[in-house]
Amino acid sequence: MPDDQARPARYLDSASSEPLHPAARETLLAALDAGWADPRRLHHPARNARLLLDNARAVVAECLGVRADEVTFTGSGTEAVHRGLLGLLEHAGAGARLALADVEHSAVAHAAAWSRRPLRTLPVDRTGRVAVDVHPGEVVALQAANHEVGTVQPLDDVPDDVALFVDACAAMGRRPLPRRWTTLAGSAHKWGGPAGVGVLLVRHRAPWTTPFPLDDRADARAVGFENVPAALAAAAALQAVVAERDETNARHHAWIDRIRAAAAAIDDVDVVGDPVERLPHLVTFSVLYVNGERLVTELDRHGFGVASGSACTASTLEPSRVLAAMGALTHGNVRVSLARETTEADVDAFCAVLPRVVAELRS
Amino acid sequence: MPDDQARPARYLDSASSEPLHPAARETLLAALDAGWADPRRLHHPARNARLLLDNARAVVAECLGVRADEVTFTGSGTEAVHRGLLGLLEHAGAGARLALADVEHSAVAHAAAWSRRPLRTLPVDRTGRVAVDVHPGEVVALQAANHEVGTVQPLDDVPDDVALFVDACAAMGRRPLPRRWTTLAGSAHKWGGPAGVGVLLVRHRAPWTTPFPLDDRADARAVGFENVPAALAAAAALQAVVAERDETNARHHAWIDRIRAAAAAIDDVDVVGDPVERLPHLVTFSVLYVNGERLVTELDRHGFGVASGSACTASTLEPSRVLAAMGALTHGNVRVSLARETTEADVDAFCAVLPRVVAELRS
Repeated sequence: MPDDQARPARYLDSASSEPLHPAARETLLAALDAGWADPRRLHHPARNARLLLDNARAVVAECLGVRADEVTFTGSGTEAVHRGLLGLLEHAGAGARLALADVEHSAVAHAAAWSRRPLRTLPVDRTGRVAVDVHPGEVVALQAANHEVGTVQPLDDVPDDVALFVDACAAMGRRPLPRRWTTLAGSAHKWGGPAGVGVLLVRHRAPWTTPFPLDDRADARAVGFENVPAALAAAAALQAVVAERDETNARHHAWIDRIRAAAAAIDDVDVVGDPVERLPHLVTFSVLYVNGERLVTELDRHGFGVASGSACTASTLEPSRVLAAMGALTHGNVRVSLARETTEADVDAFCAVLPRVVAELRS
Repeated sequence: MPDDQARPARYLDSASSEPLHPAARETLLAALDAGWADPRRLHHPARNARLLLDNARAVVAECLGVRADEVTFTGSGTEAVHRGLLGLLEHAGAGARLALADVEHSAVAHAAAWSRRPLRTLPVDRTGRVAVDVHPGEVVALQAANHEVGTVQPLDDVPDDVALFVDACAAMGRRPLPRRWTTLAGSAHKWGGPAGVGVLLVRHRAPWTTPFPLDDRADARAVGFENVPAALAAAAALQAVVAERDETNARHHAWIDRIRAAAAAIDDVDVVGDPVERLPHLVTFSVLYVNGERLVTELDRHGFGVASGSACTASTLEPSRVLAAMGALTHGNVRVSLARETTEADVDAFCAVLPRVVAELRS
């Protein structure tokens, strides 16, 4: 089973990052040659770059079903989160209260802390689903689906008159956009686009004001020299994964069901998150009496790359805030997330090796 | 002369952006395959990504002659400017005054405005050189060299006990780092690296505090998923241009002297910036009685891609803040900047065509 040449042969951590989609790779190479100039200049290479940037924006808008002028490319999903959420608070004024749950990604939690606004914590059930109990005048932050356990959040329960930031970083590409959002963030490397591209959506006429220093670039909501090749590659990857989505999701959803069952069949393993209303490709489970770091390392030795600890703060292996908020076990937890290239044989092999590795570590 | 197939055949706007250096392109392609995983995970692809990221940091540190732990990769040069400058102000406290001149890049000016700190404007002479008249306790922002006119700034005149932010975006790769800086910003696409990579230097034990929301990534001074392939490509490009630097600079400095002379020989043309103590590769001149946009467009039609208007806010063609601060003409101004691929024939052709184009536009 171990494969020292090319381990882990079976990469099961797509929720951290996907390898570049083949469509994105081709587009990136072409755009490196054609889209390197400054899109705000007047000369010919600049006009080429501007056309490519507008094209990238149009493709993303079409894939997501939004207006092109609602799409901003940022330097990362985290930057899109910060701008999306903090721009609503900036517009709402210094006294505005922010309602959010402890299952939000650390990027949201850090932005909330930085804002120094009054915070109200929304309750979370055992599956990680947030109870949308929103007060008038609050700004609300709510993820589309949880990045660790996959549970889809009830965004339709958010009243229409509330400014709502949606962290869609874990869901974009894998699920259609929710109906309800005022601002929304996505992250290209999670759908097979390149690193260095976030997508910020700001709804037409949204109550949003740039929370950070301005710049004089093509898009007033962003700063810095436009990364045209990467934006175009991100758009190409999104187009490809959206086209393949129904098929991929059906396959992944069924395979995750098998992994959930295999994990649940092991004694003292807690499989968490909503088993049905969830992201198709990921599951987290906690293995009692086992150190999470050792479990990940041992699975890696067997050729499987998975994530451990909090999905937000993996390398420190702090207990997961998400799992703690759900009242789940926060030790020995592992997140398995399927990639585009994952095969049924990979899933079978993982289901076969997991009980053995757990038994070895416990003995 | 016009070349409709491949115009502008002669790209003379490297100060806006350089095409990707061949060394960077090769590295980027390799790193897209090897460095796409999350460097903060524990599995094998993650550890690969982490090694590549550490390697990129080490290479940049060596090229710049700084400690590796002083190097942070950001999503853009602008982001490096914002973090570098605002982190000094954040640490200095709410009352700290910022001293800076009007020849700074708009990224610096926007950060200064956003900070809402008291500002003091440093005087500028006719060549664009800042008079470093610093008061105790001030934070100072001063560019390494001006991005529009090339004038090198007297950074050694800044007292050692002052917190100094240096915008080195126009100079990094082309000149060694100045001796004096507390924080410093560079931008990879200006030296032939890919877009989407800024370099922030924070001196060991500098009085600097993150001015924006925190994140849980490999480098506490940055936010967002690490763009490992781009960082590595930026490092490879920097290594290549630093190795070629003396030769490139000597060539470019002499050619810019010829362009300066050719422009100055035209009636009512004002060639600006220090003729000697300047960046090797760029010059700005103002052409009286000529519209800058028409001049750029006409030069583009003849195959030459140059920049016009304020180099910060080109597409709006607002009068340049830099030129205004120097007391220079702010109409009909053009910035010519040589690229790695520029040949002597390109320079000769530009010097031949410029007087003809100006004469046509004036007639």
